[in-house]
Amino acid sequence: MNKYVLWNGKILDQDDKEVSVSYEDRGYQFGDGVYEVIRIYQGAIHLLDWHLDRLFYSMKEIDIVPPFTREQLIEQLRDVIKANQFQADGKLYIQVTRGEQPRDHLYEPNLQAVYYAIVTPFEKPVDMWENGVTVMLQEDIRWLRCDIKSLNLLPNVMARTTAQKNGYDEPLFYRDGIVRECGASNFFLVKDQALVTHPTDHHILGGITRKQVIRLAKELGIPVYEREIDLNELEKAHECFLTATPLEIVPITQIDEKKMNGGAFGPITKKLFRYYQEKIPEDLFSV
Amino acid sequence: MNKYVLWNGKILDQDDKEVSVSYEDRGYQFGDGVYEVIRIYQGAIHLLDWHLDRLFYSMKEIDIVPPFTREQLIEQLRDVIKANQFQADGKLYIQVTRGEQPRDHLYEPNLQAVYYAIVTPFEKPVDMWENGVTVMLQEDIRWLRCDIKSLNLLPNVMARTTAQKNGYDEPLFYRDGIVRECGASNFFLVKDQALVTHPTDHHILGGITRKQVIRLAKELGIPVYEREIDLNELEKAHECFLTATPLEIVPITQIDEKKMNGGAFGPITKKLFRYYQEKIPEDLFSV
Repeated sequence: MNKYVLWNGKILDQDDKEVSVSYEDRGYQFGDGVYEVIRIYQGAIHLLDWHLDRLFYSMKEIDIVPPFTREQLIEQLRDVIKANQFQADGKLYIQVTRGEQPRDHLYEPNLQAVYYAIVTPFEKPVDMWENGVTVMLQEDIRWLRCDIKSLNLLPNVMARTTAQKNGYDEPLFYRDGIVRECGASNFFLVKDQALVTHPTDHHILGGITRKQVIRLAKELGIPVYEREIDLNELEKAHECFLTATPLEIVPITQIDEKKMNGGAFGPITKKLFRYYQEKIPEDLFSV
Repeated sequence: MNKYVLWNGKILDQDDKEVSVSYEDRGYQFGDGVYEVIRIYQGAIHLLDWHLDRLFYSMKEIDIVPPFTREQLIEQLRDVIKANQFQADGKLYIQVTRGEQPRDHLYEPNLQAVYYAIVTPFEKPVDMWENGVTVMLQEDIRWLRCDIKSLNLLPNVMARTTAQKNGYDEPLFYRDGIVRECGASNFFLVKDQALVTHPTDHHILGGITRKQVIRLAKELGIPVYEREIDLNELEKAHECFLTATPLEIVPITQIDEKKMNGGAFGPITKKLFRYYQEKIPEDLFSV
């Protein structure tokens, strides 16, 4: 599996000599690029349109000239899944960097962007769903354009490591006294039978699963408030969860030393989780 | 020139098939790495010790296991300069990334770091020295570990582009009303015959030229204050300059719409510039 990759428009064996990155790729020297992680269920692509919207948004925000049209990319993503005869659950990773040039902060106009996509198997994270995750509050030291899904991920890497070294699964970022998001997922608080989550602005990445959860909550008649959550509100929290494309909805059982839910899915989380699962087939794009 | 590169300890032709980066290099997917740019004068390396100190500091701060000892790296840097028979003025670029693994924010312990170094010719920037540069004030949206010379440089790339699109050479970052540094250089204000520059903390990169300028100013009897500069102080500024390894000392002729010095070197800047040039031979490491 994952023998074939999409490489600048071609489907190539991953061992092909063309599947090679230049040290002058701006992605390598500046993290000058963007990416998406898309969920695959039994070989079909989940919520593809929203992911593509975000990919094109990220490229636009950092002024990368897309090396494909939307239609071309869709076709190529189908091709890479088909070439691998991939019919399991997995992840589709797509990365686009600005291109190659001799190192200079200033980029040359009309650079040819470099991109690739790979498919990897990824099982449902059943263990996390059953046991939930613990999160460690950490000051958010990331840049202030977290709405762009860029390759500048070193603070996320460091925060995750810090969390794990301290016995937690994930970091939960706060800045200026406001809870922002986790290291690679969005944060939801259940309060008075409603969902509360950070509004989409430059402080967080507008997650696709976040968006889907908001849509589904509304369908279920659960009110959703997109507003800033004060750190103090966590003191009284007894149900919260995170959302991420590979993980879907995962209950948070502990924030710092404060335990929640007795380590199980809270009732609203459970309801959403089940409805999310039920709705997956409606948003699949078959290759 | 620059036919040979240092590649993971070996001196290789840049066209060698081994000179190739994996798409699973964490530098490519997360900007998970650090770098140095070192000045070469007539084939000799300038202020090598300080650059190596900073490189090892950067690796330590992000927990990269150095793939070389200091002595090994020095030997290899000599080798790459010698292999190229490089005797001109130039730049030595060194980059170290955490290594290769299947994509995961969490890094595997004991990864083998990946590194390379290249030599490129770089002439004295005489035009900048004569005409100075203009800078555009921009809000600093970078992460809060600017003391680490990491590959997460997208905000710097974007700020430089914004400056140029607006007719300026460089961005000058401010945050919380405090002037921080330029896009790839440190900022100095000359005030009452003394130098004022931001202290080395997590808001700026502790530049090697900054450090050298402070040392030389003290030798010249020019007082140096390392303290935060309020944005309001720029209103009254009439002499300031930036420092950067490739550029040394460059006068700033304009900040936003405010012109300074009539576009020429101010007297203190000139004195420092001359002394800096004079002192270069004392800090050269011959290969």
